[in-house]
Amino acid sequence: MQYPEPIAKLIDSYMRLPGIGRKTAIRLAYFTVTMNKDDVSMFANALKETKQLLKYCSICGDLTDENPCAICQDGQRNQSELLVVEQPKDVMVMENMKNYHGLYHVLHGVLSPMDGKGPEELNIKSLLKRLQSNENIKEVIVATNATPEGEATAMYLAKLIKPAGIKVTRLAHGLSVGSDIEYADEMTLSRAVSGRTEM
Amino acid sequence: MQYPEPIAKLIDSYMRLPGIGRKTAIRLAYFTVTMNKDDVSMFANALKETKQLLKYCSICGDLTDENPCAICQDGQRNQSELLVVEQPKDVMVMENMKNYHGLYHVLHGVLSPMDGKGPEELNIKSLLKRLQSNENIKEVIVATNATPEGEATAMYLAKLIKPAGIKVTRLAHGLSVGSDIEYADEMTLSRAVSGRTEM
Repeated sequence: MQYPEPIAKLIDSYMRLPGIGRKTAIRLAYFTVTMNKDDVSMFANALKETKQLLKYCSICGDLTDENPCAICQDGQRNQSELLVVEQPKDVMVMENMKNYHGLYHVLHGVLSPMDGKGPEELNIKSLLKRLQSNENIKEVIVATNATPEGEATAMYLAKLIKPAGIKVTRLAHGLSVGSDIEYADEMTLSRAVSGRTEM
Repeated sequence: MQYPEPIAKLIDSYMRLPGIGRKTAIRLAYFTVTMNKDDVSMFANALKETKQLLKYCSICGDLTDENPCAICQDGQRNQSELLVVEQPKDVMVMENMKNYHGLYHVLHGVLSPMDGKGPEELNIKSLLKRLQSNENIKEVIVATNATPEGEATAMYLAKLIKPAGIKVTRLAHGLSVGSDIEYADEMTLSRAVSGRTEM
């Protein structure tokens, strides 16, 4: 016996999502049957609308339903700071912190020669253009991930941008707040020591 | 800053799925944006169709897109055995084993007084009617889960059905194939000993 066709298709669709294997997809598909009808059509519409209505902001590269995006349009934000992130979702991670009020630029990846990702594949050209045409920007904060690729990309950007006389900074490395020294890895601990601050 | 509206709605929908928290929902929503457009509309359609086209078989209670379901319609199946499961998804678990060729009956739950689930809430009445009207059925195999509720439901069904002279059996308990005795829990081991078979 095969799964009824609609279920088989739905299992297949769920399995295309990252981190969802066959068993989970089956569980989700059967769960969908028990869901409220309105919730299911809301879900289906949200999927379609996400794909239809969202585009990348022509200025910063973030995902948005209006172009330029709300942040790029907002004159109240600090126009002198530009924070560079790898992915659109990182913008919201920063915004949720509620402690940064400047602008953003989304690279859409990191330098990764092994995966064939060079500077051309990233949103770097538009970053340089933006810095050239906008004299308000005094500091570029590179907030790529603390991975080897993220670090390399940060170094690369710093080399490109610094000659223009713009300050380039990188997020601090150190202990997670609330964490035990005992469980910190050696690299993190070493960075925490070298980056120690006066009390 | 808020998430763009389509993304916010999609995060909300993903969060309604079991086992998917906010962080995972955000990851899935942003992944959706990067998906192929056709894949997204296939996904949306599969959701809607699953909800629209699937119903419960009026005979066995399994999920199906035709009524009666393919198994109930199939005269080739062994009409003398009826296997009782808790949920529609359990039917496919049994079918995937490819070693059972009889009929099914889906209870849609187990007896669980704490959750207000009594015999009235389960698909038991239709099971009894089916046994009364169909003299071919010689054995009812109760394949509820090996949980306290599953066991209680099995006992309850056995008490109801046995007086009609129909054989009622329960899936065997014992060691998982390929498992170490060392890691089996005491209850399982005890059942494996009491249910030992001659070699």
